[in-house]
Amino acid sequence: LNRIKASGLKLRFCTNETQATREKFVKKLQGLGFDISVAEVTAPAPAACRILKERGLRPHLLVHNDLLPEFAELDKANPNCVVIGDAAENFTYANLNKAFRVLIGMEKPVLISLGRGRYYKETDGLKLDVGAYMKALEYACDVEAEVVGKPARPFFESALAEMGVPPQQAIMIGDDIVNDVGGAQQCGMRAVQVRTGKYRSVHILHP
Amino acid sequence: LNRIKASGLKLRFCTNETQATREKFVKKLQGLGFDISVAEVTAPAPAACRILKERGLRPHLLVHNDLLPEFAELDKANPNCVVIGDAAENFTYANLNKAFRVLIGMEKPVLISLGRGRYYKETDGLKLDVGAYMKALEYACDVEAEVVGKPARPFFESALAEMGVPPQQAIMIGDDIVNDVGGAQQCGMRAVQVRTGKYRSVHILHP
Repeated sequence: LNRIKASGLKLRFCTNETQATREKFVKKLQGLGFDISVAEVTAPAPAACRILKERGLRPHLLVHNDLLPEFAELDKANPNCVVIGDAAENFTYANLNKAFRVLIGMEKPVLISLGRGRYYKETDGLKLDVGAYMKALEYACDVEAEVVGKPARPFFESALAEMGVPPQQAIMIGDDIVNDVGGAQQCGMRAVQVRTGKYRSVHILHP
Repeated sequence: LNRIKASGLKLRFCTNETQATREKFVKKLQGLGFDISVAEVTAPAPAACRILKERGLRPHLLVHNDLLPEFAELDKANPNCVVIGDAAENFTYANLNKAFRVLIGMEKPVLISLGRGRYYKETDGLKLDVGAYMKALEYACDVEAEVVGKPARPFFESALAEMGVPPQQAIMIGDDIVNDVGGAQQCGMRAVQVRTGKYRSVHILHP
């Protein structure tokens, strides 16, 4: 990372983190010794905020409490869309019904999902991720969610736009074969998979 | 109903009720003046019990508390499948993760759903129905649920088998164009839609 920065190459950190603000995310990585600032991070919540502002949408939020500050500036009165993230403990029966009622009350429901993950692991076991709850609302309202985050194309495109770099001049580096490598390639970028983190050798195709 | 019974025609009541036992369901209808007994009712929970017994399945139950007595006789230790019904307040984040972990821990996950409804109305507003939560687990585990209840074909077939009547000699009467009329027709039965309950004139096709 330090060598990339020293070389003068442009750099963005693309994360699907939706359980914390960019501030908290950056502090964690700084604590691990990484040279990173909030302005260098592309994350689903601020990307969603941009979309909401552009389209004059007022969100009903079903997200993690720690993510709420990312949406502080937006008008949330009389909502005309639902934004769902990995809300964790906020995924209660009452909150799911609330989000559903906002959607079903709209002539053309708008559901924006901060990712489409199936599940993830925590110290106390596997947990359902935002994608599962997104599917529940999609089915109930007969609507397709707009996914913000990796591997969605607009997410990579906004990172590229922020750097002012065309896709064919950019390289994505990540550990996730679908979200990082696949998403970037779909966007016209080249991609490198690191052999750490989620890397599994079975994902390599042997000719 | 009294005239059908007096005529000597065979009769079954087919319900998708999964928030109460057949006993409670029958008492409610008796209270409204209907001549009905538990033995005349085909409902998802007992139909699921039959399937579980036939296939040696031990269920992890994610259902309404009032439905639990229907599963009293089954072995539920060391579960090898998940049965989901309209669990209402039991649809907590913790319970959904529990059911998910049972499924994802199986080599070939078996998910049995007592219906596929999207939502329904109660006095305090619209609620997500079992189908939405079924979709969440299906997506997270990359599995397709086996649906027990109307409009699934095996459900009508078991009602017919209980009466000992072939489909072409049976008529389904109901208010739901998809679950009652469509499901029965798929099964080779004729069907009559009543103009009460869920009936909406927009569902009629004008040639």
